[in-house]
Order: sequence, then structure tokens, then C-alpha cells
Amino acid sequence: MKVFTSSDEDRTYQYSQYLKKFKLPLKLNLERGGFLDEVNVAYETYGELNPQKSNCILICHAITGDSHVAKHNPEDLPGWWDIMVGPEKYIDTNKYFVICSNILGSCRGTTGPNSINKQTGKFYGPDFPLITVGDMVNVQKNLIDHLKIDKLLGVIGGSLGGFQCIEWATKYPEKILGCVPIASSPRLTTQGLAFDVVARNAITSDPNFNYGNYYNQEKKPDIGLALARMLGHITYLSPESMNEKFEIDRNNPREISTSFEKKFSIGSYLAYQGEKFVERFDANSYITISTALDLFDLGSDKKTLSKNLLKTKCDWMIISFSSDWLYPSFQSLNIVESLIDNSKNVSYCNVESKAGHDAFLLQQDVAEYGQITQSFFDLLSNEKNTIITKNKDLDDKIKIGLDNRIDFQYISELIPDNAKILDLGCEEGNLIDRLISRGISSSLGVEIDQANVIECIKKGIKVIHSDLDSRLEKFEDKKFDVAILSQTLQSIKNVERILKEMTRVSKFGIVSFPNFAHHPMREMFYNEGRAPKSSGWYGYNWYDTPNVRFPSIVDFTEFCKEKNIKIIKSLFLNSKTSKIIENNPNLNADSAIFLIS
Amino acid sequence: MKVFTSSDEDRTYQYSQYLKKFKLPLKLNLERGGFLDEVNVAYETYGELNPQKSNCILICHAITGDSHVAKHNPEDLPGWWDIMVGPEKYIDTNKYFVICSNILGSCRGTTGPNSINKQTGKFYGPDFPLITVGDMVNVQKNLIDHLKIDKLLGVIGGSLGGFQCIEWATKYPEKILGCVPIASSPRLTTQGLAFDVVARNAITSDPNFNYGNYYNQEKKPDIGLALARMLGHITYLSPESMNEKFEIDRNNPREISTSFEKKFSIGSYLAYQGEKFVERFDANSYITISTALDLFDLGSDKKTLSKNLLKTKCDWMIISFSSDWLYPSFQSLNIVESLIDNSKNVSYCNVESKAGHDAFLLQQDVAEYGQITQSFFDLLSNEKNTIITKNKDLDDKIKIGLDNRIDFQYISELIPDNAKILDLGCEEGNLIDRLISRGISSSLGVEIDQANVIECIKKGIKVIHSDLDSRLEKFEDKKFDVAILSQTLQSIKNVERILKEMTRVSKFGIVSFPNFAHHPMREMFYNEGRAPKSSGWYGYNWYDTPNVRFPSIVDFTEFCKEKNIKIIKSLFLNSKTSKIIENNPNLNADSAIFLIS
Repeated sequence: MKVFTSSDEDRTYQYSQYLKKFKLPLKLNLERGGFLDEVNVAYETYGELNPQKSNCILICHAITGDSHVAKHNPEDLPGWWDIMVGPEKYIDTNKYFVICSNILGSCRGTTGPNSINKQTGKFYGPDFPLITVGDMVNVQKNLIDHLKIDKLLGVIGGSLGGFQCIEWATKYPEKILGCVPIASSPRLTTQGLAFDVVARNAITSDPNFNYGNYYNQEKKPDIGLALARMLGHITYLSPESMNEKFEIDRNNPREISTSFEKKFSIGSYLAYQGEKFVERFDANSYITISTALDLFDLGSDKKTLSKNLLKTKCDWMIISFSSDWLYPSFQSLNIVESLIDNSKNVSYCNVESKAGHDAFLLQQDVAEYGQITQSFFDLLSNEKNTIITKNKDLDDKIKIGLDNRIDFQYISELIPDNAKILDLGCEEGNLIDRLISRGISSSLGVEIDQANVIECIKKGIKVIHSDLDSRLEKFEDKKFDVAILSQTLQSIKNVERILKEMTRVSKFGIVSFPNFAHHPMREMFYNEGRAPKSSGWYGYNWYDTPNVRFPSIVDFTEFCKEKNIKIIKSLFLNSKTSKIIENNPNLNADSAIFLIS
Repeated sequence: MKVFTSSDEDRTYQYSQYLKKFKLPLKLNLERGGFLDEVNVAYETYGELNPQKSNCILICHAITGDSHVAKHNPEDLPGWWDIMVGPEKYIDTNKYFVICSNILGSCRGTTGPNSINKQTGKFYGPDFPLITVGDMVNVQKNLIDHLKIDKLLGVIGGSLGGFQCIEWATKYPEKILGCVPIASSPRLTTQGLAFDVVARNAITSDPNFNYGNYYNQEKKPDIGLALARMLGHITYLSPESMNEKFEIDRNNPREISTSFEKKFSIGSYLAYQGEKFVERFDANSYITISTALDLFDLGSDKKTLSKNLLKTKCDWMIISFSSDWLYPSFQSLNIVESLIDNSKNVSYCNVESKAGHDAFLLQQDVAEYGQITQSFFDLLSNEKNTIITKNKDLDDKIKIGLDNRIDFQYISELIPDNAKILDLGCEEGNLIDRLISRGISSSLGVEIDQANVIECIKKGIKVIHSDLDSRLEKFEDKKFDVAILSQTLQSIKNVERILKEMTRVSKFGIVSFPNFAHHPMREMFYNEGRAPKSSGWYGYNWYDTPNVRFPSIVDFTEFCKEKNIKIIKSLFLNSKTSKIIENNPNLNADSAIFLIS
């Protein structure tokens, strides 16, 4: 027998006893015209506001969520983000003052279509005005003012919650220090829109919908709303996780009492989710909020998106999930690229996940995105973790072999103090960390390995989780002063493209690589007829080396000449002795550093 | 103003004047129990049956198609596959006798829920029995018998049409020579099932559905059926093509008269498609057929799938589309793998397409899948095209440089006549072609480049369109006698894995590669300190060579020793002189061939 589990499975939808209410002091003018006379806001808070009022995090919920983000105590009703929020959790309520309010248009305490319109004394129903994500954020802003909080440490949320975060950053740039949109995007894809359209059509076609005037009817548009919810559930899961969940009993569904089809286990699951949903959610709210979500549009092209993000001032931590097809990762990357165009502080991690869009609500990947979130807010609130402090002594810890990054010292010396740095293949961020210790203020790493990306984030290093091949093309011309490719060239297949792109996006490039024409290599190959192998960067077998290119100093120099790349300076090293080699470096140096443009 | 186009956009749904009718001589017993007293079949034929009756192709339509696959003449109503079927088209009706019949359960002429049940004198409606894809094929088999055709040259169809093809191959293995399932799978994914469940729920929840008894009502369950169709349309398009289609006027939809939402252009498109669909299709048929589709299940695991495909006898040409997320490519590959396990003749191409599932109905990729289909049927009917004949003279055409594949001759000599060959990275199939000319009867290529794959198919060479990295793992132990990796080792990063897998799946392996320790290479590297470069296989720059590994004969020999790979025979060549090198080959040979196990 399948046990149905989902992101909001076991939540009861009683109102929390910790629910607080706030009434907006004035009428709310709406972005698309019209106004709401009276807006009540349901919200909950966790933890204590510190005397400086600098520890406040606003959590924004997704389409069907509410203010009850977490339990207030072990006996409390479950919250929708208990995995993230609570004492000593990733968003630690011992440390932070957390606010979560039900969004405008919803049906969980804040004014929405099922509220009474004071002007008529009746339910708003279909007369509830068209609202936007901006209106939702304006209501939250009123709440923050009411709580006398001048500046939020951060806003965080997934899906529609992510849209609210982005809206905060663009609408109230002075009001937030950090922004964490999760599983979000600049706007829905056309496919995403299409699902919402069909969902709304299912609701409005339900004969009990009655053009939205159903509050006094015995029968509500439950069938249409249930169909909408079923569709939603399909889009929240990845095909892979759906298969894993329903493969075993595909044709032997759980026996449930439902008017919907229950031939297949996925069918009985959807029926169950659909029918459970109508007990706690209002059809007009679903239409109102999903329409607001569909209208959220920061721009489809990079130019518009960049323009819209220009005035933001916060630090950004953008998180997507690899298997999310409703808000695909490339959309988060589009935001990242536009923020970089605008020279904003941004890090990005595409969390490797099987769970699809719902991943941000599920346990299985919380170790990754939770840790990222925690580090981001901790660093923002200046409680830098111990790793940072430790790394300050990096200079004292130079080791032999691959870890002997004597080249870092020389690379570091090539870089002026006020330079904007791009480190391609930054690994755990050791070079950037060294540069930051030295006083460099603007740096960005690009790294493909998730564990390395998380290490960077923990150190407070700005990093983009991406491969190099596609990434550089997205950066503007001369966006950086110095792009660094340290000991990475030999592992890149398309050498020409990366060097061309490097010199396009930055004023100067620094390339360091092992010189494969170092004499022990030559001798081994010449005498023994075997692929050269030595220690350090050369310490690999021919058949399993990460290297796919084997440049020599002469090769690289000729390449630069041929491709019109200017070599400004070059340094040749013996990394064992840490000495600079001047005599016949192509024979005597084991590594090279080139400053190019 | 957007012009709506889709796979079935401009078709009128009059019955074709060329429609023929056939009545099954006996009652039809159904696979899931019960029977149908009387089954009428609507079908159309194109071209002439030849005297040997060996030129008949059966085309199977998808969920909402019909027998009118193509125009019978230029003035005729458009058919649903005019791009593929007609005089001098890919399925050339000057050459082939083409049959297309409306499937059982449909509403386009063949018996279905909207037919009169002779026993009651009323419409079947909800009393129409549960049918399967097997039942549909049984009806087609009756038709073929009626037409006195003993054996079909082939069956072809996309989506549900592909399911019918597979069913033909498993149910009537003696009756078909070739099988071409396009955009198909062994069974729907759970996600695919989920969409169908929601679609059926939308129909059955429509108050006008009346448990299926709506034929005498004024109002039909049009809203539910339209919602189902909208959902279908989302799944037929790729997210990419959907975005391309609806990006420009996202918020400025075409003004159409509809009761559905038309805020966004995708919305008005879906409304239009949904409302147009109900004019031509019956809700009970949609439920009946989509349920049959959902129940089609050749097995979820490889063992079951292989068992179910064991008794098939036809040649297979399996086609998928890279952007099809409803029937994702890996599912077609699952069929391919199971057929290979069973030593069946199969080729596979994953057509690079942006169009999604609907690609098989659209113009944009027809050049690829049309050509593949044409070659497959032409070769099956022994009208081998000219390329085959030309290639017989390959031996006379040995050229210099990269084309000088003198190694092919030596490789060929290592292979016994009755061997089952696997050529990894077979390119255009020249080695296999040579082996076939020599008399080898069983061969299979694996190739990643689509143009090469199509070339192989045109030559009649069995080929699997796939990368090598993931492919070999799918083959059974010792499935082949000889696996060949000719001049490919140097371009594969994970050398150890491929050699391990090669020796697992075949009794013997033949590996040929350029010997990078050939003396001119050594001298260049030693004297000049530059990455070796010469002509032929060595004729690349260090920065843009396709090679990522640079093995020497000594390296490879040591590697084999270390990894317990047995070298049975080795041959060292000078490819310029076509001579065998026996004296210090690691210095004097420019290429090597190893027979391993």
C-alpha cells in the first residue's frame, strides 16, 4: 500500500494559534489600477528582533502556502518549512527574527476574494481586483513598517516566493541586504503559463464556479479546483521522481474513495491530492494568485532583465534545482547573468536534485540548499564562520605537489588591488580567498563542482555554479579587469574558444598551466616512448588524466601569436623549488604563467 | 496576429470520398474479456499491390488520427501525413501499397463508443468494452486477411501508432518484415499516465458527460474534452518550441471567440485547439483510446521487455526525437537494448529536433526521419540504393591521410566470417560495409553523429545512434564475438571503462590507434619542445585536436598488463607505406592494432 507523501501532506489547515493580524493603515493602491479599501494581513513571527533590528528575515510562501512556515514549539501544528526554519535549523530562529505573512489574494487570513468587501458587505468573489506580485510585496512592506523594521537582513522564498524576493529587491532596493530566490525565474516559461491556463479553465468551467459567486452555494467548484491541483502536482515533480514513486504499484492503486479515476496509482495519488486540496483552498484565490504569478515578468531578453535589475542593491544567493522543469535552471542563470552585467554581488548554485520543482520543500536536498542559505545569511550578518578565519593563514600552509600553489603567489602579484577578478574553474576558491585577504574587493568564481561551489559560498566567495564552456559567452565585453585560468587550460577541450572569450570579457587574462615540454617529460617520451608522467600536475596516467590538452610554453606562445593574443608578461617557474626559470624555460620550467590581453 | 498552426491545423473532418469499409466476418473477442458482435473498419489505400503482394505498408495512426493519412490526388482533402505519404514521397505510393485504417474505439468510421450496439439498438456509450492496443491490431490483422495479404513489408506509426507497430511485431511476428515505431516507447512514463488521468478526469467530470450517455443530449461534454485536448497539446510540444511559438505576442493573444481564458497567446491557442477538437472527436472515444494507450505495457524492466520482444522476427528501425519529453528518447533506447539482447536486427536514430513529440507530424525534421524511413523500406524491399553498390568498390579507393584506412584491411583479416561484430564509433560504416562485402552476416555499429547514422542506415548497416560512454553498459556479457574500436581510443576520455566494457560485451576486442611514440613525434617533442604534429591522425594542433588521449604502443601494452587484458595478437603498421613494422614498433610504427580479450 502506497503511503502518499508530498510537500504538504500532513499539514492540518487549522489556523495557527500564533497567527497575528495587522490591518493596513490606509487603502492599498494596486499596480494594475484600482485599490483595496481595507487589507488585513495574517502573519507569524519566530525568534526575537535584536536591538539593532538587523536580524530580520522575511520568508515568502508559494502559491498555496500560508504564514505558518514552521512550528512555534514541538507541540505546534506542522509548518510548511519545518526542515528549514526553527531553533538551530538552517534559518536559526535563535539567531534570526523570522517573519512570514500570508500573501495578498490568498485565503489563509490575509485579504483575498473570500474576504468581505466592506463597500458591499458581501464576499469579493469575482470582484476581487487583479493583483500582482508587486501588490503582494507592497502589503509585506506595510507589515515591515508596522513592525518598525527599517531594513531586512534578507528575503527568501521558493517558486512564487522567489518572485516576491525578486520584487523586493527591485521595488525596495534600500530595504533588503540579501535576497534568496529559490526555484524561481524572471517569468514563467510558456509551458508553465500553459499549465496555469488549463488549470484556471478547469476551475472556471466547473458549473459550480458560477462566475466566482459560489460562497453562498452549498456546492463549490471543487472539481475544477481539484483538477487544477492535480495538474500542479504533475509539474512539481520531476519525471524521474514520479516514476520512482509510482512504479512499484503502477497498476495497483491505493483504494481511496473518490469520484475521480483510480485505475493507476498515479491516478489515485492525484485524486487524493486534488480532493484534499479543496478542503483548504479557495478557487477564487487560486485564480487570483496564479494570474498574479503568470503576470510576473522581469523581461524575456537579457537587456530588459538587466534594466529591471539595475537598481537592486542587495547581495544575491540564487538557487535552482537540476531536475526542476517548471522553473528550469537556465532561467535562474538568466537572472545571474543580468546581475553580473550590472556588477551586482551574486552567487548561484544549481543543486543536483532528483526531486523537481518541489525540491525546496522536501528533505532530500535540504542539506545542500539549507547549508547554502545558512552560510549566506550568517556571512551577511557578519557572523563569518570559522573557515574564513582559518583561510587567512593560507600563505603559511603551502604544501608540496598539487597543493603547492606557488603559482598563486605570482598570479596574485600580477593583479592590481582595485581589479575586478574573474576566476575560471575557481575550485574551492583558494586563489580568490588569497586575493580577498590581500585586499581585492571585487571577485567572482566560476566552478562546475557542486561541493566546491558550496565551499566557496561558505567562505563568502561569490561563485557561479556552471561549466566554463557555455558560461563565458554570457558575460559582457570587458566586464572584468582580470580573468584567471589557473591550471585549468589543460583540462579544456576548446582552448581557442575559452581564450578568445576570456580576452573578450576581461581587459587582461592570466593563464597558468603545466609546461608539458619540461625536460623530464621530453626525456621520458623520447627515450621510453611512453606518455610522460611525473609528479604534481604531471602525476597522471595517460588513460585517466583529467588533462586533455598538453601545452608547452612554445606551443602556447605560438598559439597566441597566431590568434592575435598579446602576451604582456610571462613567468616560468620550477614549482618544486619555487624559483623563477629564465634559462630556456620551455626545457627547464615545469609551469608557466602568462598575462595576456 | 498569430496564425495558429499545429499538426492537424487545416484538416477538415469530412469523411474522405476514398474511405472504404470492411466488416469483420466474425465477432471480435477482446483481450481483456468480452467481445464485440460486429466491427466495421474504415480504411483507405494508396498505390497498387504488386503481383507478389510484397509491397504493402500499413500505417498506424495516433490517438486522434484517422484513415485519411494522405491526399489521394491533389484536389483531395489534406491527410494527416501528407509530408510522408504520396507519389515520390518518403513512403512512395508509386512503389508501395499503403493501407491506413481507423483504429478500433475511434469515432472516424471504425466501430467505437459512438457506434450502435446491435444488441440494444442504442449507442454503445459507456458500455463500449475496455479495449487494448492488441485489440486494435487484431482488427487490422482481420483487414489484412480480408485484403488477402499474407505478409506486410512493414508497419509504421508514431506515438500510439508506434505502440501498434510494436504490437504487430510481438503478436504477429510472421506477418511483418519491418517495423518502424516513431516517438514511441515500451509503455507510457508515469508522467505521461498522469496527464492522461487528468485529461480523463476533466472529461468525466463535465456535467454533460452524464456517465458517457450523452449522444442524445443537446449538450455534449465539450468543455471536458477541450480541456483534455489542451493538456494534450502542451505535452506534444517541446518547451523550446512552445516558447518560440508564443514568445512574441505572449501578452497579446489573438482575439478569438471562446468561453475559455484568453489572457495569454498560449491561452488563446489552447482554447482554439480545444474548441476545434470537439467538433471532430468523441469524448467516449478519447477515454477508450487513451485508456488503451495507458494500458499498453511491454514491461518496465529490461528482463520483461526482452522476454516480450523475444519472438519478434522483423527488422526494426526505431526513431525518437531528442526534444520529445512525452516519449523520451531513453524509452526508445530501452526497446533497442532489449532487441539487441535478443539478437534482433535493429537500427536506431534519435533525430535532433526542437519540435517535441509532435515532430513526427511536422515538416521541420521530415528530411531526417523521412529519409531514414525511405531507406529502411527500400532496402527491405531489395531495392538497395546506389550508395550500397558504390561502396562495394571501396577497396579500390584507398586514399592518403585520414582516409587511408589500411588498418581496415588488417582488422578485417582478424575477424572470422561467422563473427558477430560490434563497431564502436563506426562513423559512416565503412569498416562494417567492407566486412559485409566480405561476407560477415551479423554486425552492429554505434555512432554519435546523426549524419553518419543516417549514412549507415542508407547503406543498410545496422546502427545505434548513441554515445559510447553510456551505451556499452547496456549490452549483455559476451553478446558479440568481436568489438572493434578503430582509431577511436584516442578520442575517449574514460579509456579504462571503454576497454573493460568492450571486453565484457564481446569475446574479442580489436583496438587500433595511432602510435604517438612514432619517432617523428618523439623527435619533434624532444627537440622542439612542442606538441607533436604530423600528417594523418597526427595532423591536428594541440589546441583543437579531437584527440584527448595520446597512447603509445608501450603505454597500451602496459595498460593491458596492469588491467588484466589479454593481448592475443598485435600488428604494427606504417600507414604511409602500408607495411607491417616488426623492428621496434613503438619507435617505427605510426599505428597499432591489438586483438585483445
